Amino acid sequence: MCELLGMNANAPTDIRFSFSGLARRGGETGPHGDGWGIAFYEGKGARAFHDPQPSARSDIARLLRDYPIHSRIVVAHVRRANRGRVALENTHPFTRELWGRVWTFAHNGQLKGVKRWPLGAFRPVGTTDSEHAFCWMLEQLRALGDECPPARRIDAEIRRLCAALAPLGVFNMLLSDGRTLYAFCGKRLCYLTRRAPFGKATLIDEDLSVDFSKVTRPDDVVSVIATRPLTRDEAWIDASPGQLLVWRDGELR
Amino acid sequence: MCELLGMNANAPTDIRFSFSGLARRGGETGPHGDGWGIAFYEGKGARAFHDPQPSARSDIARLLRDYPIHSRIVVAHVRRANRGRVALENTHPFTRELWGRVWTFAHNGQLKGVKRWPLGAFRPVGTTDSEHAFCWMLEQLRALGDECPPARRIDAEIRRLCAALAPLGVFNMLLSDGRTLYAFCGKRLCYLTRRAPFGKATLIDEDLSVDFSKVTRPDDVVSVIATRPLTRDEAWIDASPGQLLVWRDGELR
Repeated sequence: MCELLGMNANAPTDIRFSFSGLARRGGETGPHGDGWGIAFYEGKGARAFHDPQPSARSDIARLLRDYPIHSRIVVAHVRRANRGRVALENTHPFTRELWGRVWTFAHNGQLKGVKRWPLGAFRPVGTTDSEHAFCWMLEQLRALGDECPPARRIDAEIRRLCAALAPLGVFNMLLSDGRTLYAFCGKRLCYLTRRAPFGKATLIDEDLSVDFSKVTRPDDVVSVIATRPLTRDEAWIDASPGQLLVWRDGELR
Repeated sequence: MCELLGMNANAPTDIRFSFSGLARRGGETGPHGDGWGIAFYEGKGARAFHDPQPSARSDIARLLRDYPIHSRIVVAHVRRANRGRVALENTHPFTRELWGRVWTFAHNGQLKGVKRWPLGAFRPVGTTDSEHAFCWMLEQLRALGDECPPARRIDAEIRRLCAALAPLGVFNMLLSDGRTLYAFCGKRLCYLTRRAPFGKATLIDEDLSVDFSKVTRPDDVVSVIATRPLTRDEAWIDASPGQLLVWRDGELR
């Protein structure tokens, strides 16, 4: 299994606090030592950092804990390999371009038999079932048209695609096109939304606290989605198996 | 204008020495202060680092100067914006997947009118003429077939595509699919190949020398391609305008 971390906010937001907790689970407080990756959207662009090294001992993870990247959408993943060897090409999140947007995908679980599902022009580079499922989803989305459809139309199609994939096994996933963050709960996923009045939070995996009232503006809305709660003193909400969460501008849609 | 740096070797090789020289040209010894990027192939995967900050003052560039990534193919670019605003989505190198391979592209120059050339499924995320040209090239390549053709067939098609683009303006470019490194000289590009007996080299842009005999194995072959020579004491060869250089396993093909 692996762990996921997603963030969606209504203004560019620094993810370092949450990422610090997740990174510790990559080989230190958790067994997910088979690589990690994180993608940050900034405007229409996205920056991704991948490392087949455990995040708890990764120089790149250390840089990111010190270096503030402000982003409205973040997708991160620490990996414990079950399908596909430990290699850069098997390290989530995966990215592809569709309709002139950067799509990013990270998955926790297994999807039995998905590699027999036919693909079109999007092809996996690595050998994970996750990347195959991502390529399959994008090909279905592309069938919606040559130009990017309205967000609601994409939401409905992604709901349909998740419902098709979920019966194959465990399908906890994060997907984004830079405008919307989709989170599907196959088995385990939780979330919370931080907004005014902001309070304090303390990580579970590291002795680190933050007072969000000192690092936010009053109208900031920041939602965080994770496999397991990252903080010990906030009210995380469990998603239900089969539930698709659709986030835009920090809010559930 | 911008500056390019490419590397192709027959074994995973550390690019830090050459990258140190290039990075200084991003806002320090050169005027290319509008962002930079570098892509490293490792196996079938590729890692890219992008920063809209000048490379001479970039925390990520500093990390890469300290952190050895061993790669057989590297594509790097420092940017001085002429088309497209300074933003992450306009920062080279650009990447796309085709035939299950990661393609990487970086360009120095301008291509007048290329944005009117029709595209297929590959669409630009940003607003540069460079990314438009890259999307156009990939669409032409895709027309070769559903599966990846032999390398020689791809070489011939890329030669044809470069000849079509070059008359639009200045087209110095690096392109790779992780197996081959293509370098097209529209106006200015130079290269060298390091092989046994290895000697010393000193950067032009920084007081830094390396004795390659101490960091290589006897059968290593490493070729470096750059807009302008990076070292003061090696014999760089000027490519001719209109010349396509095709590198595999460190050697010109």
